[in-house]
Amino acid sequence: MVDAPQTDVTTLGECRIESPLGALAERQGTTRHYVHESDRVLLDDTVSLLGARTSDPPSFEPGGPRRRIYFDPSKIRVGIVTCGGLCPGLNDVIRGLVLSLTAHYGVTRILGFRNGYQGLVPRHGRSVMELTPQAVEYVNEHGGTILGTSRGNQDPEEIVDTLDQLGVNVLFVIGGDGSMRGAQRIAAAVAARDRRIAVVGVPKTIDNDIPYIGHSFGFQTAFGKATESLRAAHTEATAQPGGVGLVQLMGRHSGFIACYAALATNDADYVLIPEVPFALDGFLPHLRQRVATRGHALVVVAEGAGQEHLAELPAATDASGNKRLGDFGDFLRARILETFAAARQEVNLKYIDPSYVIRSVPANPYDSVYCLRLAQAAVHAAMAGRTDMVVGSWRGRFVHVPIPLVVSTRNQVDPDGDLWMSVLEATGQPTAFPAPHRAAAA
Amino acid sequence: MVDAPQTDVTTLGECRIESPLGALAERQGTTRHYVHESDRVLLDDTVSLLGARTSDPPSFEPGGPRRRIYFDPSKIRVGIVTCGGLCPGLNDVIRGLVLSLTAHYGVTRILGFRNGYQGLVPRHGRSVMELTPQAVEYVNEHGGTILGTSRGNQDPEEIVDTLDQLGVNVLFVIGGDGSMRGAQRIAAAVAARDRRIAVVGVPKTIDNDIPYIGHSFGFQTAFGKATESLRAAHTEATAQPGGVGLVQLMGRHSGFIACYAALATNDADYVLIPEVPFALDGFLPHLRQRVATRGHALVVVAEGAGQEHLAELPAATDASGNKRLGDFGDFLRARILETFAAARQEVNLKYIDPSYVIRSVPANPYDSVYCLRLAQAAVHAAMAGRTDMVVGSWRGRFVHVPIPLVVSTRNQVDPDGDLWMSVLEATGQPTAFPAPHRAAAA
Amino acid sequence: MVDAPQTDVTTLGECRIESPLGALAERQGTTRHYVHESDRVLLDDTVSLLGARTSDPPSFEPGGPRRRIYFDPSKIRVGIVTCGGLCPGLNDVIRGLVLSLTAHYGVTRILGFRNGYQGLVPRHGRSVMELTPQAVEYVNEHGGTILGTSRGNQDPEEIVDTLDQLGVNVLFVIGGDGSMRGAQRIAAAVAARDRRIAVVGVPKTIDNDIPYIGHSFGFQTAFGKATESLRAAHTEATAQPGGVGLVQLMGRHSGFIACYAALATNDADYVLIPEVPFALDGFLPHLRQRVATRGHALVVVAEGAGQEHLAELPAATDASGNKRLGDFGDFLRARILETFAAARQEVNLKYIDPSYVIRSVPANPYDSVYCLRLAQAAVHAAMAGRTDMVVGSWRGRFVHVPIPLVVSTRNQVDPDGDLWMSVLEATGQPTAFPAPHRAAAA
Amino acid sequence: MVDAPQTDVTTLGECRIESPLGALAERQGTTRHYVHESDRVLLDDTVSLLGARTSDPPSFEPGGPRRRIYFDPSKIRVGIVTCGGLCPGLNDVIRGLVLSLTAHYGVTRILGFRNGYQGLVPRHGRSVMELTPQAVEYVNEHGGTILGTSRGNQDPEEIVDTLDQLGVNVLFVIGGDGSMRGAQRIAAAVAARDRRIAVVGVPKTIDNDIPYIGHSFGFQTAFGKATESLRAAHTEATAQPGGVGLVQLMGRHSGFIACYAALATNDADYVLIPEVPFALDGFLPHLRQRVATRGHALVVVAEGAGQEHLAELPAATDASGNKRLGDFGDFLRARILETFAAARQEVNLKYIDPSYVIRSVPANPYDSVYCLRLAQAAVHAAMAGRTDMVVGSWRGRFVHVPIPLVVSTRNQVDPDGDLWMSVLEATGQPTAFPAPHRAAAA
Repeated sequence: MVDAPQTDVTTLGECRIESPLGALAERQGTTRHYVHESDRVLLDDTVSLLGARTSDPPSFEPGGPRRRIYFDPSKIRVGIVTCGGLCPGLNDVIRGLVLSLTAHYGVTRILGFRNGYQGLVPRHGRSVMELTPQAVEYVNEHGGTILGTSRGNQDPEEIVDTLDQLGVNVLFVIGGDGSMRGAQRIAAAVAARDRRIAVVGVPKTIDNDIPYIGHSFGFQTAFGKATESLRAAHTEATAQPGGVGLVQLMGRHSGFIACYAALATNDADYVLIPEVPFALDGFLPHLRQRVATRGHALVVVAEGAGQEHLAELPAATDASGNKRLGDFGDFLRARILETFAAARQEVNLKYIDPSYVIRSVPANPYDSVYCLRLAQAAVHAAMAGRTDMVVGSWRGRFVHVPIPLVVSTRNQVDPDGDLWMSVLEATGQPTAFPAPHRAAAA
Repeated sequence: MVDAPQTDVTTLGECRIESPLGALAERQGTTRHYVHESDRVLLDDTVSLLGARTSDPPSFEPGGPRRRIYFDPSKIRVGIVTCGGLCPGLNDVIRGLVLSLTAHYGVTRILGFRNGYQGLVPRHGRSVMELTPQAVEYVNEHGGTILGTSRGNQDPEEIVDTLDQLGVNVLFVIGGDGSMRGAQRIAAAVAARDRRIAVVGVPKTIDNDIPYIGHSFGFQTAFGKATESLRAAHTEATAQPGGVGLVQLMGRHSGFIACYAALATNDADYVLIPEVPFALDGFLPHLRQRVATRGHALVVVAEGAGQEHLAELPAATDASGNKRLGDFGDFLRARILETFAAARQEVNLKYIDPSYVIRSVPANPYDSVYCLRLAQAAVHAAMAGRTDMVVGSWRGRFVHVPIPLVVSTRNQVDPDGDLWMSVLEATGQPTAFPAPHRAAAA
Repeated sequence: MVDAPQTDVTTLGECRIESPLGALAERQGTTRHYVHESDRVLLDDTVSLLGARTSDPPSFEPGGPRRRIYFDPSKIRVGIVTCGGLCPGLNDVIRGLVLSLTAHYGVTRILGFRNGYQGLVPRHGRSVMELTPQAVEYVNEHGGTILGTSRGNQDPEEIVDTLDQLGVNVLFVIGGDGSMRGAQRIAAAVAARDRRIAVVGVPKTIDNDIPYIGHSFGFQTAFGKATESLRAAHTEATAQPGGVGLVQLMGRHSGFIACYAALATNDADYVLIPEVPFALDGFLPHLRQRVATRGHALVVVAEGAGQEHLAELPAATDASGNKRLGDFGDFLRARILETFAAARQEVNLKYIDPSYVIRSVPANPYDSVYCLRLAQAAVHAAMAGRTDMVVGSWRGRFVHVPIPLVVSTRNQVDPDGDLWMSVLEATGQPTAFPAPHRAAAA
Repeated sequence: MVDAPQTDVTTLGECRIESPLGALAERQGTTRHYVHESDRVLLDDTVSLLGARTSDPPSFEPGGPRRRIYFDPSKIRVGIVTCGGLCPGLNDVIRGLVLSLTAHYGVTRILGFRNGYQGLVPRHGRSVMELTPQAVEYVNEHGGTILGTSRGNQDPEEIVDTLDQLGVNVLFVIGGDGSMRGAQRIAAAVAARDRRIAVVGVPKTIDNDIPYIGHSFGFQTAFGKATESLRAAHTEATAQPGGVGLVQLMGRHSGFIACYAALATNDADYVLIPEVPFALDGFLPHLRQRVATRGHALVVVAEGAGQEHLAELPAATDASGNKRLGDFGDFLRARILETFAAARQEVNLKYIDPSYVIRSVPANPYDSVYCLRLAQAAVHAAMAGRTDMVVGSWRGRFVHVPIPLVVSTRNQVDPDGDLWMSVLEATGQPTAFPAPHRAAAA
């Protein structure tokens, strides 16, 4: 899939300090929980690849506690910042970082920067929050982020100035791909100044579109909450004559939420995602036929689907790139209504776009576990002096992934893969919508 | 409040048949559970009213089983129909009717008409569904209505033709005020033909705007589900710089859902409802001030609020009456954004309109109890030959209310009452928004 | 029902201070939201009673803000304490009190006493918690009580000493009937010392067994959560050959939770409550017959049911009064298994007792509204100098009820009332279980 | 880990029939979704193993549709049976099988056998249920299994007789390891008679203790639901002086539910599981110390934990093997109370065992997706003539696993692995409890 990607993470230096856990474990006469420095997790294990492989296949460094660490926990100061849009689990990650740092390593000085990278730049005037176990009690039961957030990056030099002034040795950044690019620049500025500051990311993307991290935290909560909208739309569609439910879900470039939500309820008739283009004049008659036959239909679209059709419309071309993406659901609603009206076929369309309600819920128990374990892995990585990296999960192991790798591509639904096959089976939709009149015109 | 409203229900005739429960109760040597024919529930009990009252204050007939009934349960056929928009609890009412009719009275022939009144008019070609205890198992765990629904009334003469042909003696209509007017016309057509057919309604209104029935089924579920949107909007607003959450909830003429949802989370800064007009140029600066002071604000609007402001806009005047109602949230969003932009004040507005997701959820446990008890009361009323009436709850008792009374007015939030006072206390919003420049102009 | 109960509450003295809301309302040119001193809410409004009534029927003082108040909000210190077992909504009441005191009246000094009345007695060494709007943010999303709790009363003199030393003018007690008796004694000690300290209660009882307050906060959440256990037991019972689900719910003296939970799922075959004795040798054969006929059965018992049968057993007589109550579910499980075994009838019994899981959940949205409004009413009452009283809801109005009245009797399910009738209808169980062999013996 | 396990599944014969999907895919000019016959999924991919591996490492056959299938869908009859205890997702699997068989392959005759293997033996007199898409509508919203279940196997010869008589070609068995052993015997009896009947399993184990299938369906729902009990116990424990919450969760041999539930809430102080023995006289003083220091503690035990301590007690030795397992929670409760009493330390212990409430809930959205995809994979496997196998998920792919392999061992928490390390980090409990006085004695 990739040609020898760079999978090794950067480290600030040699680990010479005994881990506090180390002392404990030794008393028990065991070192079994430690990660050995030579452990690796294979990037790809398909038999064909392995057959052809050289002696050194691409692989990741596993996450977990090390016997020797880089920072002295009793002396360091740690910062945490959350960036970008809300995502279920942010407070779990914050709480996990704080509890792991304090209970496990005995770190006592943890600062929460408010409103994303703005909180690291004095000009924005955001106060800093002292993070203690007491301060994060119960925050996992509440959605959003107790630190607040903001979009966009800030000048990395100003940020490193702030870290310097506050004596911060470790910065945890919880954010999306844009924020990870920002973290990369911060790590570069740190390196340029030759500072001992680790920058470790916990990748956040509700769309699950960051590659090489398995799946992203909050994703299960998100598609789980999204199923409520599918259930609502299906209930409405089946209750009304000519009922059509149309649900637009998050997914600017990747249709994972749409696919999983559709599989979870197993009621959808169509799933439209950015990864699989479709002919609108093939889809619309197919939908009319489905409604005529079954009495109702449920259509699930990812917000990034069908962008090629928006471009056709003059009215849409003047919008700026990012803005236009939000409009496909509205556009499709209008086209469905037109099509049914033109055919004098009764239609009762209900359109649901639940975006904000999904982003802001607390994590479900699975994501709470995952957030905690990502936080633990991030703390271990930082204490061992790793930097310019994020934590992820790969083939059942927590791993360290270099930031350059996670911002290099996107994770997308493979149109040839088994997830999309499951969706096609569950919906019964064709693998492609024939566009009859254009075919006839050709 | 009303001058001698007509509170007596119509009855088809004298009750001469011993209730099946009667036989059982007599074996136990008690008649205590029966409603006595002379029982009444007072319409109003304020001391001042009572002081002035004559010997016969307005009152309702209580619901419940009668010792003697009008119909012979072993011989009748019963029909059930659900009309209008979805509302939590429809399937609970259907199930309650079926189980009460079969288990309690031994009725064996129950028909479900599909897609509202359309199902009672052959031309629409809707099939009829046989309703048995088996057929309604678990339906209470599913939202919507298993019978389907549709909007609008049908010709009452055609409907009575259908009832005649199918030999239906009791028709239960679950629907809103429009459907109750339809039921009234059906009862009138039945009376004109001198048929022994009882028409009994279970009033449905998610907005809680039907008067004289206490509160409507599904209302608690609805405002409970609505709180999720308030929580989401508040979480978003508090997380972002200049955060404003704007939630539009159901309520075309009555702001009950907005009020109760706001009280439930106790996070709202403003609640705007149809019953309390407000000056937009008073509200908008107040909102800006609140955001400037607290950093964020949560605004909850009922969809019928602020209609006077929509009329001001030329762009909105060409829309038809009903259509325009849905647009206030959108209108307000635009005006808020304009106002902040004009003042160069940062704003991060998230707008949520959760309508369909609320309507289609299953009833919560309270509403399930209420639906069941309404269904039981409706069955007892019909078996006792009552017609042209609905069941409701008044001062802790289930009662019979004539249809003409429930369609005569609307139930609304009293701007002088204690509910609105609680909202004002909880939000801290002023009782009225002063409109400074217009005042200055005057 | 009661002969001229004492329904007037005690007041510390004349209200001479203008309410802060007063100034605001006057600017608006209205005093409409204020409660008039002469307003009353009738205790009973049955027509027969009214016909015979004298000029002064029993009635309650309505809750709500007064134009003139007793305490100067800017000078007082307020204490809050939660006592007894957990109940959904405790944190909502605490938050409601704090927000209403601060936002509405401008009170700035609010103390939370920890672990019930223990927190008011220095010997127990509990720290005092400063309660601010910030401190109660989000606590309503979390079950339990942030103040902690404990069982039992403490010496009222010591408590008044503490209140004196801390300069507390208002004490809000959230607790059950025992704690209200404690509050009564505190109010008496305050009166004996002629102090200006108001003692106002918010009655807490998950069983809904406190009289004259309408219903208790947390009750809807409790029976709603209890339905999960009924659903689980029913699902188990219907899946297994000879399936019997047995669920024991809270209710030492009152079976409200059992009744409402059973009505909510409408799947129970039997509901056994303390208020309705039953013959065990009538019930057991009836259950066997039901399982033989339908294949399964669901039995719901309140923990206080069937105590007369426990007394029959020698093995149970040595237990102390309160302890024995918890054992009926276990006892019944054993007897059911014996009975089926003796009859060689297959049985697959699943017993569920969900008590703690129910008590500790956060309030549902309805209860959150109710808790907030009770808190608002309690604050208004205290500010107006009322003491030795609790707030409740009666016939749709919030009211002031003297503590002596609420501890005088219990609220129970009326075996002749319409709630129990609904349960009998829904379950199909007989009004009494004949005990054949004993009848034969007689 | 294993020495060359037998990972190849049995097949009834060569696949000669074109898949119905095949025709469709060819029209689209693609065969991309088909599984190639040579595809394999590696059993283990650790670098060290791979370094030493021979040319043919252990691997599984991937699941998914084949281009050519074994059975003619239009002619076959399919049976489905659910066995053993309830588990979230059973109805999702049933629905997934029915929808995949009908929509995708066009199979029209599907029979549901009732009450487990009893339904396949005429003597038990269970009726057979016709399974159509209509019959399985909404069943996924309901817990349990619509087919009913029972424990224990039946004579495989009688079962094959029934399959023969009914003309069943494919039997899907959804059940635990015992039921899979039964399925293996049925497949053997089929082979002995040389019948063309495929026996395909979907492994069910709420404890997640079946090996080689990744994780089991319903597991996430189960531990998610279990977190409610942990939250309740923690809320109780923190509210009371000397509060100890004790929660016993499912897990006779494997502590996965206990571990994941504890990680999800991140509030537990101790997790005790069968895989990690502990000294009771080390644990109890540690617990007392924790309560003395923090004021409260939360203990989570898997039901199979600490069996070695039960054996010590004479009172427990007379119970039969399986029975005794359920008693550890009770035993521990008693020992904790004793220990605190002996030390005159205040304790307020709340014990929760939520077992049935967890088993019988509907699947959460993740498990619904997983159940559907397992069902799809099972249908594809059966149509391709595979038998004596189950479907599972291994390293991100759905795979075919021979029944002998899944019943050969158990899946357990690895005391040296990273899951247990995460638990130790989250709880702060020691890796082992020193037993001081025994050490002193030695």
